Amino acid sequence: MGARAGIVVTGTEVLTGRVVDRNGPWLAERLRELGVDVGRTVVVGDRRTDLAAALRFQLADHDLVLTSGGLGPTADDLTAEVVAQVQGRTLRLDADLAEQIGRRTADPDAARKQALVPEGATVLPPIGTAPGLVVPGPGAPVVVLPGPPGELQPMWPSALATDAVRAVLARAEELRQAEVRIWGPREPELAALLRAHEQAHGSLADAGLEVTTCVRDGELEVVTRYRPGAAEAYERLHQALRDGFGPQVYADDGRDLDEVVAGLLLARRATIATAESCTAGLLAGRLADRAGSSAYLAGGFVTYANAAKTTELGVPAGLVEQHGAVSQEVAEAMARGARERLGTTIGVGVTGIAGPGGGSAEKPVGLVHLAVAADDGTHHRELRLRGDRSVVRRRTVVAALHLVRTVLERPGTMEG
Amino acid sequence: MGARAGIVVTGTEVLTGRVVDRNGPWLAERLRELGVDVGRTVVVGDRRTDLAAALRFQLADHDLVLTSGGLGPTADDLTAEVVAQVQGRTLRLDADLAEQIGRRTADPDAARKQALVPEGATVLPPIGTAPGLVVPGPGAPVVVLPGPPGELQPMWPSALATDAVRAVLARAEELRQAEVRIWGPREPELAALLRAHEQAHGSLADAGLEVTTCVRDGELEVVTRYRPGAAEAYERLHQALRDGFGPQVYADDGRDLDEVVAGLLLARRATIATAESCTAGLLAGRLADRAGSSAYLAGGFVTYANAAKTTELGVPAGLVEQHGAVSQEVAEAMARGARERLGTTIGVGVTGIAGPGGGSAEKPVGLVHLAVAADDGTHHRELRLRGDRSVVRRRTVVAALHLVRTVLERPGTMEG
Repeated sequence: MGARAGIVVTGTEVLTGRVVDRNGPWLAERLRELGVDVGRTVVVGDRRTDLAAALRFQLADHDLVLTSGGLGPTADDLTAEVVAQVQGRTLRLDADLAEQIGRRTADPDAARKQALVPEGATVLPPIGTAPGLVVPGPGAPVVVLPGPPGELQPMWPSALATDAVRAVLARAEELRQAEVRIWGPREPELAALLRAHEQAHGSLADAGLEVTTCVRDGELEVVTRYRPGAAEAYERLHQALRDGFGPQVYADDGRDLDEVVAGLLLARRATIATAESCTAGLLAGRLADRAGSSAYLAGGFVTYANAAKTTELGVPAGLVEQHGAVSQEVAEAMARGARERLGTTIGVGVTGIAGPGGGSAEKPVGLVHLAVAADDGTHHRELRLRGDRSVVRRRTVVAALHLVRTVLERPGTMEG
Repeated sequence: MGARAGIVVTGTEVLTGRVVDRNGPWLAERLRELGVDVGRTVVVGDRRTDLAAALRFQLADHDLVLTSGGLGPTADDLTAEVVAQVQGRTLRLDADLAEQIGRRTADPDAARKQALVPEGATVLPPIGTAPGLVVPGPGAPVVVLPGPPGELQPMWPSALATDAVRAVLARAEELRQAEVRIWGPREPELAALLRAHEQAHGSLADAGLEVTTCVRDGELEVVTRYRPGAAEAYERLHQALRDGFGPQVYADDGRDLDEVVAGLLLARRATIATAESCTAGLLAGRLADRAGSSAYLAGGFVTYANAAKTTELGVPAGLVEQHGAVSQEVAEAMARGARERLGTTIGVGVTGIAGPGGGSAEKPVGLVHLAVAADDGTHHRELRLRGDRSVVRRRTVVAALHLVRTVLERPGTMEG
């Protein structure tokens, strides 16, 4: 029993990293919610032989295979044709579909190409110009979906409604997923805790827990997937993480850092303003990622040049001269300046050396000063980060959000 | 002749999209530069059977297989063990290596686990605590690399220096790649041009050109890979694209938008300041992505709240009241305000409705006004974008950079 699905993501642009695949992870997560297990995704370039090999590989030991991409009007769009071939079906022109697509495009050749459908397939109505397909096989069915996430995601419900997919879902069993997010300890400490837990309680895998540990921009994440029968074993693990790391476990209810910070800002009725140098807007941009962020984000300053720190934030030029632009003093003055200029509950100041140039022996690349100004004063943190320019900037944003979080979590200081 | 490589990226966190894979694309590009063809990457969760299946699938028709990840100290790190099994080799403890790793970690159990090496493998010295491996097989060798890009990338040269990899590279042939980047036309126009070209000159594939078209944030990219023998056929295609799209082809020498804009700013000795509402810092953050960006980026303003538009940029409150915050007038006033406040050559203003809320019949979600203020006045563009909040914000940043580009490309207006 149980149901397993395999994913094939097509496109040389994905294989070579020109486009980041959003479909594989999205489909994996939707399937997991339905109790369908996804063990692997193949990313394949726009080449007939590789696509056919990928489909056969996934069909061999799965109950369902899903593809994304390769349904467009250009010659490198091969998916419908190759899926038909692998499933042993010929293509035929669906005249109604051609007419329907023809109404959406000025190009009759493109419409005809996109209306070629494998015999016996169910057509999923197009969101853009490309229809989706559910192609039965001698073995597992293949669900063929378009590449743009804006088309794939709205088409998903109609794929789920087909008989072929419903038959697979009927065999699925509940598969839970729990996430514990931790800020502070490093991976070896987590590894040691997990080993100690296994020594005390036996193998996690044997207890039915599939545990993935993930390090991302300095955060640790423990993701556990399990069937309902393993719920008690999961509770033991969860308790061990809380006992081991205490308040360093900052979320264990599925929320991520952005949600936790947004929740705190809303609960405290706090507003926030940013003053950024090395991150140059990435922190403000991330605070605005969430819909409804205008409730707390007033705005911010990108003071990349030193003169801007003085003119826009009122950082005394003498302070920059005396301590350098990357210093606790300047970070704090930036945070206070942003808070005062925009009249917010808190202000965040970020200044650092993202590299590759600009470092010195005393102030190396990766040195970052963060400050949060609030009504009870200014909170500061110094970071020494490793990694290239983009890593340093990304980690700085995460560390700044955690400093905001810890300041907001201080009891009773922020009502307002 | 020729050499083909397959990639296996491990980690449930990659499969489920918690971490974006940077290793697969990076390795694919390094291999392409060496003339090694990469047709597919398998992303596989931390599960023994799936990892073994992925390795066997890639080994079946490749000359070289590369893996990333799964070399850490935790129990879900399985790669060395499973590669050993697939290549038919037993693991042995490398005592020297254990000692070397032991000096870098406080955890002797972790060091011992990470020093288990398949018999006959070449050890690549660790950058962090995980060593890399080159594991010969009866068939193709497997190069085992750590997951963190900051470890994988510096380890790559030592993998290339091994006899097993050099033997594969000796069979590689030059594989060129050319990129033509286009802003303006949409995908069906490109598809029609390519079809017309094939009708006139015969199949691109038959001529030895592997053409991938890619749509990304409103930009079109045509990537062509070919062996030197197909250079003439490529030149014909390149010319057809230039003839068909004229100045809409904004780069055909491998540079991307960011490089083109940075190059123009440097060549014009121009400085830039931003004023962002819906993108809230993403434009400034992207302008600062490149090392050396302090030569042109003075800074910027995130004026998310309307009050901030007035206090920080001098946008008259009456203007916002009369035309609304998302209007040509406000975008232009923001651009002028940023330019004046920071004394830059140009200022960019961005205001729009990213959604999901905030739209109306007259001003729907996806409506964006962009403006660039320069010495010859203010240039404006209105966008009507489709997609969710993050898509709208990303496309807005790209369109803003193109507006900056076209303003900077105007002859003779910008010196100084």
